[in-house]
Amino acid sequence: MPGTAHSSGAGTRVMIIGGDGYCGWATALHLSARGYQVAIVDNLVRRSIDLQLGSDSLTPIASPHDRVKKWAEVSGKHIELMVGDVCDWAFLEQSFTSFKPEAVIHFGEQRSAPYSMIDRARAVYTQQNNVIGTINVLYAIKELAPDCHLVKLGTMGEYGTPNIDIEEGYLEIEHNGRKDVLPYPKQGGSFYHLSKCHDSANILFAARAWNIAATDLNQGIVYGVRTEETMADPMLINRFDYDGIYGTLTNRFCIQAALGHPLTVYGKGGQTRGMLDIRDTVRCLQIAIDNPAEKGEMRVFNQITETWSVNEIADIVVAQGNKLGLDVQKVNIPNPRTEKEEHYYNVKCDKLKELGLEPHLLSENLIDSLLTFAMDYKDRCNLELIKPAVQWKESGITDKIAKAVIGG
Amino acid sequence: MPGTAHSSGAGTRVMIIGGDGYCGWATALHLSARGYQVAIVDNLVRRSIDLQLGSDSLTPIASPHDRVKKWAEVSGKHIELMVGDVCDWAFLEQSFTSFKPEAVIHFGEQRSAPYSMIDRARAVYTQQNNVIGTINVLYAIKELAPDCHLVKLGTMGEYGTPNIDIEEGYLEIEHNGRKDVLPYPKQGGSFYHLSKCHDSANILFAARAWNIAATDLNQGIVYGVRTEETMADPMLINRFDYDGIYGTLTNRFCIQAALGHPLTVYGKGGQTRGMLDIRDTVRCLQIAIDNPAEKGEMRVFNQITETWSVNEIADIVVAQGNKLGLDVQKVNIPNPRTEKEEHYYNVKCDKLKELGLEPHLLSENLIDSLLTFAMDYKDRCNLELIKPAVQWKESGITDKIAKAVIGG
Repeated sequence: MPGTAHSSGAGTRVMIIGGDGYCGWATALHLSARGYQVAIVDNLVRRSIDLQLGSDSLTPIASPHDRVKKWAEVSGKHIELMVGDVCDWAFLEQSFTSFKPEAVIHFGEQRSAPYSMIDRARAVYTQQNNVIGTINVLYAIKELAPDCHLVKLGTMGEYGTPNIDIEEGYLEIEHNGRKDVLPYPKQGGSFYHLSKCHDSANILFAARAWNIAATDLNQGIVYGVRTEETMADPMLINRFDYDGIYGTLTNRFCIQAALGHPLTVYGKGGQTRGMLDIRDTVRCLQIAIDNPAEKGEMRVFNQITETWSVNEIADIVVAQGNKLGLDVQKVNIPNPRTEKEEHYYNVKCDKLKELGLEPHLLSENLIDSLLTFAMDYKDRCNLELIKPAVQWKESGITDKIAKAVIGG
Repeated sequence: MPGTAHSSGAGTRVMIIGGDGYCGWATALHLSARGYQVAIVDNLVRRSIDLQLGSDSLTPIASPHDRVKKWAEVSGKHIELMVGDVCDWAFLEQSFTSFKPEAVIHFGEQRSAPYSMIDRARAVYTQQNNVIGTINVLYAIKELAPDCHLVKLGTMGEYGTPNIDIEEGYLEIEHNGRKDVLPYPKQGGSFYHLSKCHDSANILFAARAWNIAATDLNQGIVYGVRTEETMADPMLINRFDYDGIYGTLTNRFCIQAALGHPLTVYGKGGQTRGMLDIRDTVRCLQIAIDNPAEKGEMRVFNQITETWSVNEIADIVVAQGNKLGLDVQKVNIPNPRTEKEEHYYNVKCDKLKELGLEPHLLSENLIDSLLTFAMDYKDRCNLELIKPAVQWKESGITDKIAKAVIGG
C-alpha cells in the first residue's frame, strides 16, 4: 500500500548521518544554506581511522564542534551536532526522538574498499558497521518516524563490471518466455562494496514490508573539494583524502601532479568508473530530498555525471597540469585489487538529470575544483601515503595496521 | 586461476559447523557412518534459543556430549566435538588449526525467518551472526586451509518468488543486444533470508578473489526427522521443531494432524516452495563433499526435490492422516508474513540429481518419515507453540521475547 512521504524543500528537517565526512559535511552546509533544518549525526570514526592509519586530510579540518559554530557565525544558520553511533540503538533512538527527522541522509558507513580489505578484523568491522547501522536506521524510521524519507548512499561499485548496460537499480529480464523486473544483479568487488549491496537488499525488503520511502543513491567516485559553502571560511574547509586507502582516484592523481610525482595507474588502467564533482553530489542530495520516493518504494538513482577510464583520468590530469606549468607523467604499477582491467561499461544515469541536475564536467572543472587546491596544500602531503597500501589477495588474519601497512 | 580442491570421499576430514542442529546432526552421523572423519563445531545457541522462547524439540534430544559418546558406542566411530562460536575468531582459528579440515559444511547460522523478524535486536543478531560467521570461515579457509572446500547452506528463500524460472544460482541475461551470465537476482523476504543473500555475495567474491572452492546449497524447506543413523539409538534421535518460529511447514502440519488440530494455512495457501526429506539433505551434503567445486568457483545447487504449495501440502497431510485413522481438517488463518500468496514458481534443480541424488518423495514417504513419529511423541507437544508468533509488520524495537511472544 504505497503512500506519500513528507513533502520536502526548504524547512525540511534533514538528519545527516555521517555529516562530518567528506560528502556529508559539504551536503550539510549546502542544505543548511538553503534553509533546510539540518542535524549532523556522526561517531567521528573517520577521524579515528586517520589516527589508526597515520594518515590525515590534506586540508586542515576543524573539529566538528568548531565547524558548526563557525557556520553559525558565517551564515546565521544553526546545524545541530549529535556525536554518536547509529549502531548504538539507544543513541539512535534518542537522536530520532529529539530531532524528529522528515528525511534522513545516510552517509554513515565505512566507505573505503581498501580499508575493508586490510585484514579480517576490518572486513568484519566494515560489514558489521554498515549493515547493522542501516538496519537500525530502518527500524528507527519504521517505529519512530514512519513518514521519514530515507536517502541512502550506495555505490556504483555494487554493480561491478557486467558485460551488459547498467540500469538504475532494476532490470527487466525476459527468460524462457516470461518477464519480470528484478533487482539488478550485483557483484561487489570488496567487502566494502558488498556491504552496500547488503544494505540495498535490506532496504528494498524493509521498504516493501513496512511501507517506507527510500532512495538508494549509487554514487560514483567523487572528486573535488570545493563547494560554495565549504569555501566560505577556512574553518569550514572540507576534508581532502589523498592516501592509498581513503583517497579517491582523481584526488590522488591531482596531488601527485602537484608534487611532480608520476600518476600511479593501477594495472592496465582500462578500468572504467562513473564519477562526479562534489558540487554535484550535494546538488543530487538536495534533488533526492526535494523529490521524495513513494512510501513502499526503494527508488534507485545512479549518481554519476560521466564515466572515465583510469587512463583517461590520468590523461586529463596530465593535460590540465601542463596548463598550470606542471610536468606530469603517468606510470603503470601492479594492480593491488582484483578487478577487470579492460571491460564494457555503460551506465544509465538519467533520473537525476531529469529532476534538474546540471553536471560539472571533469575536463572543464578539474583545475578549478581540485588541481590548484592540491598545489596550495602540497606542503602538507606525505607522498608515502599515496602508495597502494592494501593488496586484495593479501588480506589476512593478522593485524596489518599493527604491522604498519602505511609506508611499511 | 582455478585449481582443484582436495579430492574427497570416505576418509575426508569434514568440519560441520552447526553440527548439533536439525540438519547438522543428521549430516554428521550420515558422513561418520560412511567413513568420513567428522568434527562438529557448534556454539549450541539453538538450544539457548529454545530456552529464550520457551519452546523445545518434540523429541527429547540428548546433550551433544552424550550424543557423540553414544554414537561411538553404537558405531565405533569417533566424532570430535568443539563447542564454540565461529564469530569468535580465536576459537575458529584454533579449531581449524587443530582439526585441519579438507571440507567445511557451514550450517552454523540462525535459520528461522520468524525469529529474525521478532524485533530489531533479533534482526541484528541474525545478520551479524550469519554474515560475520561466514566472513570468518572464508578467512579461515584462505589463511589456514586454502585447499578446503566450503559447502555453505543457503536457502531457496533467497530467490523470493520471481515471475521467471529460478535457475541454479546464475542467470544468462540478454539486455540491449549484449549478454552476460550474472548472479541470479535475489529478493529475500525476511532479515534471515537476506542474511543468506549477503553470505552468497560475500562467498562469490572471496571464491574469485582468493581462489577458494565453494558450493552454495540453496536448500528448500526440510521435513522429516528420521535418518538411518539418528534412529539407531534413542540417544541419537534428531531434533523435531514444531513451533511457529522454528518449526518448518510440513513438520508443523504433521503434529497438528497427530493432535487432531486443524492444519493452519497462512493466508490463501497458494505460496509455493521447494522441499526435501531430511534423508535427502544428508545425501546432498555427501554428494557435494564427494564432488567438490573447482577452486575459484562458487558453485550453486538448488537443493530441493519437489515443489508444493502450502495448500497441496495440507491436502497431502489430510489424505495421509486419514490413512492412519486421523480426522484432519485445514483452516486458513491470517498470514503473519509479507509474501505473495499466489505466484509463478518454477525451480531448476537438476545438478544434484545429475550427481546421483535419488529423491524420497513427499506423498509416498510422509507417514514413514514424519506422521507416525508425530503421533508417537504428541504427548510432549504444547499446541500453543504452533500458532504464528511473529508478524512481519509488527517487528519493532522493544524486546518481544520479554513480552512473551509465545502464547502471549
